[in-house]
Amino acid sequence: MADKLNVIVICGSLRKGSYNASVARALPALAPPEMAIKSAPGYDKFPLYNADLQAVGNPPEVIAWVEAIRAADGVVIVSAEYNWSIPGPLKNAIDWASRVKDQPFKDKPVAVQSASPGLVGGSRMQYHLRQALTSIDAMMFGKPEVIINFANKKIDEKTGEIADQPTKDIITQQLAAFAKFIERVRA
Amino acid sequence: MADKLNVIVICGSLRKGSYNASVARALPALAPPEMAIKSAPGYDKFPLYNADLQAVGNPPEVIAWVEAIRAADGVVIVSAEYNWSIPGPLKNAIDWASRVKDQPFKDKPVAVQSASPGLVGGSRMQYHLRQALTSIDAMMFGKPEVIINFANKKIDEKTGEIADQPTKDIITQQLAAFAKFIERVRA
Amino acid sequence: MADKLNVIVICGSLRKGSYNASVARALPALAPPEMAIKSAPGYDKFPLYNADLQAVGNPPEVIAWVEAIRAADGVVIVSAEYNWSIPGPLKNAIDWASRVKDQPFKDKPVAVQSASPGLVGGSRMQYHLRQALTSIDAMMFGKPEVIINFANKKIDEKTGEIADQPTKDIITQQLAAFAKFIERVRA
Amino acid sequence: MADKLNVIVICGSLRKGSYNASVARALPALAPPEMAIKSAPGYDKFPLYNADLQAVGNPPEVIAWVEAIRAADGVVIVSAEYNWSIPGPLKNAIDWASRVKDQPFKDKPVAVQSASPGLVGGSRMQYHLRQALTSIDAMMFGKPEVIINFANKKIDEKTGEIADQPTKDIITQQLAAFAKFIERVRA
Repeated sequence: MADKLNVIVICGSLRKGSYNASVARALPALAPPEMAIKSAPGYDKFPLYNADLQAVGNPPEVIAWVEAIRAADGVVIVSAEYNWSIPGPLKNAIDWASRVKDQPFKDKPVAVQSASPGLVGGSRMQYHLRQALTSIDAMMFGKPEVIINFANKKIDEKTGEIADQPTKDIITQQLAAFAKFIERVRA
Repeated sequence: MADKLNVIVICGSLRKGSYNASVARALPALAPPEMAIKSAPGYDKFPLYNADLQAVGNPPEVIAWVEAIRAADGVVIVSAEYNWSIPGPLKNAIDWASRVKDQPFKDKPVAVQSASPGLVGGSRMQYHLRQALTSIDAMMFGKPEVIINFANKKIDEKTGEIADQPTKDIITQQLAAFAKFIERVRA
Repeated sequence: MADKLNVIVICGSLRKGSYNASVARALPALAPPEMAIKSAPGYDKFPLYNADLQAVGNPPEVIAWVEAIRAADGVVIVSAEYNWSIPGPLKNAIDWASRVKDQPFKDKPVAVQSASPGLVGGSRMQYHLRQALTSIDAMMFGKPEVIINFANKKIDEKTGEIADQPTKDIITQQLAAFAKFIERVRA
Repeated sequence: MADKLNVIVICGSLRKGSYNASVARALPALAPPEMAIKSAPGYDKFPLYNADLQAVGNPPEVIAWVEAIRAADGVVIVSAEYNWSIPGPLKNAIDWASRVKDQPFKDKPVAVQSASPGLVGGSRMQYHLRQALTSIDAMMFGKPEVIINFANKKIDEKTGEIADQPTKDIITQQLAAFAKFIERVRA
């Protein structure tokens, strides 16, 4: 057990019924045996990023989020796409973390997933997020991608569970490949 | 006077000493005679976007921001680049506005400027912002681009004024071209 | 008839059985009454772009392509996505055209469509193409987007015809909106 | 000597006097002792990519290029930016290579550099290239970036040599970091 890869999952959407929150909750059961996945602390209490505020001191929620990322062997970000890009609240959290001393994404393996009711499944967010995280020296996992389109048909509205086997399969494949990636690239 | 193009400027950075705020303040004096530029209301009090919150009602700050955009003939966004992309707080504001009924960016002419102390002058933000605003049907102004690199050398730290004539010139050129663009494309 | 909008379609894939070629062939029948669509001349004989070659003179195929774009009221580009970006041959053609004196994309209304057997339907190409064409002052049409995913199931392999009504509908809607866009923005 | 990292450099521009070709020629002298850099074979004789052509057989130039990439421990791509994106000829070469059986970019460490006379130094090409190579499973090196803006002032027009010490320094830093990256990530 001590040797399990410690992975945290960050959800890019704050609403209760979020498809991406549903996917995030499904990850632990789909992870390979050598990987343990738990939720990252919330970032919903972060103030809007302002360097003047940060100069006074990082809010405790920011510190908790940063420390959880720092302690993890890897991070999975499961996010909606807002307006063909990264949701503002998620980007705000990354902006806070990126300017903390010894920012936690450096050399951190990160995998990305997205779900949306639309045709392209939030994928446009993924390429912007890859670019943003590359700028802060994350080790971005490549493929397979997890892009869950028409999420309203693949996630059970009542239970919030993934009701589509191919979706579960691709997640399972990505997490297994991500485990190998972490082993390969971690410093 | 009644016929002047009514343009508002949105600054993408919230800190007091922001280079982009300095540029935003310089715009009215660099605008062509047929254009009047004033600041948009602030978005620094917006909560982090959450569809559950919005379902309860749009905060008054959001409504004020949306109405100012709606009333304008055009919008100039002057923004920093955070982590090779759009600053989280600015994206958060756009996310709120985009989901308001009759969202205000539809058919709205928008020009973009960026300033940063770095080599590429915040330009990576511009292409992500163009993509995000295209998704909500803004009419994106093309060129000339205003990309102010090494902003710490071009903006006077004490006065906050632009101290570089070529920078003023390209802004003047962009605003003049933007005025023509507004006349051409507005519905 | 004299007043019909003269639109040309450029296909981003050179293979005979291309899904995108199938879509391109379907466009004339889906255009609104006020728009006539015909194929652009080929770019398959263009040499690889080299400024030294161009300094000697533009090849006749390049000149023919450029003149067809220049003469058109609007351009529709229907393209595959190669490696999450613009196909090399199409980009090569655009590179040649962009450096011709009085390059033809300036102020030209351009709409984009993509088809692919994959999940995201070639959409990643669209955002790179939008960026490239914005750089040469094209007037990029926004939405609705035409993104044809799982194209192998929506295009009849034998006849090469679009066999999916929703796909035809979205193309019809885009072309109608593109006609309005051309009227609105053309100089 | 036998243990030296074998790195090849690909130049993204075909013209003789290319700034990027100048930079590519400068790399061997700026590489760390444990790295040997030589030029990749040319791709200037590649036909425009066409899957029908490839079905007949890969041209010998394509095979030579692919084999050189396959044999290398790492690849540096030094490229111009054409129209805010990847030059067509370079993208065409990548498109050919990507569809060869056992395509050579899989798991290959790749670093990117760009030079241009413009303000942003070809950087827009870099982000599109990162996206394209991620799609074919390259291991993309992150930072430091090498972005050589105002290249006409930093490269001696007559000798073709880099005449700017900070430019040499950042290249030296990137190559040293790239050597470490190769050691870390190679399969």
